[in-house]
Amino acid sequence: MPDTIDSIETPAFVVSETIARRNIRALQDHCDRVGLRLRPHIKTHKLIRFAKAQVAAGAKGITCQKIGEAEVMAEGGLDDILITYNILGSAKLARLRALSDRLTRLAVTADGQAVVTGLSAAFADAPRPLDVLVECDTGGRRCGVQTPEEALALARGIAASPGLRFGGLMTYPAAGGAREAAGFLRAARGLLRENGLDCPTVTSGGTPDMWASEAADILTEYRAGTYIYNDRSLVKRGTCGWEDCAGQVLATVVSMPTPDRAVIDAGSKVLSSDLLGLTGHGHVMGHPEIQITGLSEEHGVLAVDPARPLQIGQRLRIVPNHVCVVSNLFDRIWIEGADGSLEQVPVDARGRVT
Amino acid sequence: MPDTIDSIETPAFVVSETIARRNIRALQDHCDRVGLRLRPHIKTHKLIRFAKAQVAAGAKGITCQKIGEAEVMAEGGLDDILITYNILGSAKLARLRALSDRLTRLAVTADGQAVVTGLSAAFADAPRPLDVLVECDTGGRRCGVQTPEEALALARGIAASPGLRFGGLMTYPAAGGAREAAGFLRAARGLLRENGLDCPTVTSGGTPDMWASEAADILTEYRAGTYIYNDRSLVKRGTCGWEDCAGQVLATVVSMPTPDRAVIDAGSKVLSSDLLGLTGHGHVMGHPEIQITGLSEEHGVLAVDPARPLQIGQRLRIVPNHVCVVSNLFDRIWIEGADGSLEQVPVDARGRVT
Repeated sequence: MPDTIDSIETPAFVVSETIARRNIRALQDHCDRVGLRLRPHIKTHKLIRFAKAQVAAGAKGITCQKIGEAEVMAEGGLDDILITYNILGSAKLARLRALSDRLTRLAVTADGQAVVTGLSAAFADAPRPLDVLVECDTGGRRCGVQTPEEALALARGIAASPGLRFGGLMTYPAAGGAREAAGFLRAARGLLRENGLDCPTVTSGGTPDMWASEAADILTEYRAGTYIYNDRSLVKRGTCGWEDCAGQVLATVVSMPTPDRAVIDAGSKVLSSDLLGLTGHGHVMGHPEIQITGLSEEHGVLAVDPARPLQIGQRLRIVPNHVCVVSNLFDRIWIEGADGSLEQVPVDARGRVT
Repeated sequence: MPDTIDSIETPAFVVSETIARRNIRALQDHCDRVGLRLRPHIKTHKLIRFAKAQVAAGAKGITCQKIGEAEVMAEGGLDDILITYNILGSAKLARLRALSDRLTRLAVTADGQAVVTGLSAAFADAPRPLDVLVECDTGGRRCGVQTPEEALALARGIAASPGLRFGGLMTYPAAGGAREAAGFLRAARGLLRENGLDCPTVTSGGTPDMWASEAADILTEYRAGTYIYNDRSLVKRGTCGWEDCAGQVLATVVSMPTPDRAVIDAGSKVLSSDLLGLTGHGHVMGHPEIQITGLSEEHGVLAVDPARPLQIGQRLRIVPNHVCVVSNLFDRIWIEGADGSLEQVPVDARGRVT
């Protein structure tokens, strides 16, 4: 008997292939239209099949945050990877070098000379130089050089380092900070040009601002991850609608202790505690009146309208606040076909923490 | 060359076996002293080795929240398991029945007749009845019957159901709600006795209140999970000290973008976003001046004192806010011996969501 949405065990993570492929297509079309190369971040799906689908749709390559993710993707046949992370330490540098030898193109980012020194030591005798982009803190207040002048200094350091090639500028802007990011990047690229340094790539990212074009004149590449599945945080920002949310958690009502409270079998172990500034822990499809008010590890507590009671055993589809982390919480997920068929697949790059 | 705390890749989850075993001993001694059976919740460690250590130290059996966890523990030789969850649906009921046949004792909880009806259908022809405890909502506002009268009615329903045996009363009280819980349980047990129903077990749980003895006269059994590793939330509540925190995340400083900001390679993918009412995302051992102000999936942002700067590549040990969820985020963890030796072990019951 084939698996159906009513027969699979819950909690489960169900991804609509139709919606995911429509989302892939929509952003690729947008990037093609505005002249940006698209380099999707695979952290959201962590699946070789969807990384390949993104490249087949026209993406230049993929973005990973961890060497472990990139290793899985390389194993799956992806051959142009940007790791947007400071890689440090002998073990990781050795893995990075081995990875480079398997790929058509590998690039990483750096935001300080200590990182560049380590990369150079690992790649000085490499058959092919490693592309290193300078990460710029354009308002996101995470990693990154703080000024265009620092970006220039680090780019010079990269260009002067054996085994490395300066690959350009990278930023992950604050949400809504596309304009501020563009200003920083313009100034940095100007300084680079004045000093005779070619800047082949200027790359920014983030699904929330992917439709914004303020920065498109300076950017050559865009990295977005969440857009393939979308989530409650993006609906609340107005980036997409509920009908664009491909990744949903299927849960079962396991208790109705009071007329205004239901408990489901999806807690923080599958939905995560990520709030992303929101109140509540997800959106119950078809039940806008329900609030997911609390999560413990294996329980979700719902405030329900007594006039619209739920039934014990009833199944609910939930759009999580932050879908990327949900992918990392399931060993296996279900891919739902256009005909309602369900295929269970392992999450290839789940749990790659290093 | 043996692995050392300086050589293993980060982020890593490192558990001190010395501290974990001391914590196991301390609570077992307490329970022995006050005359409570201890039934540790394995959700915190998810390891067969520590479940066995808890039983070897004197625990009556173990508690699991999911059938999947219990299946792993049964495979590892644990033979007395309480699953504190409403088990629903034909697939899960079939697994529960199969699990029961492998164990010396299996018990579950229920908080409504619909759950009891399902359990009875699955166990009506079982060679041995299933013990079913009534879950009571004594203030935790999650699952559970709402009044002692409802507890009596459900206990009668269980006792009258083929294949089931009424096993007693179970609660997971609100933090600090031990006294309120005891009042509910006393009233419920009184009603049961008046109506000729034996109540073999009265079980409560939660590490925060494990040293409180207000309820000890009514309780026969205690379930605690987090006490084996402890975490920042428990230190902040005064339940333990930093020196009792056996489970720590080892992270590396990957960036120092400004004198007052450092970035580590541990984000929500390893520390989780659980706040448990706290501000900040963990405690950096030896650095009380540092605040972990923000997490994204692969980055932790630290507010540091410019007068006490960190170095790129420096390793930090972090006590997470909520250690149980950290166990679920690592495929493999490191057990640190008294001599500083490190052994890498898989987290046996990680990711068992169903």
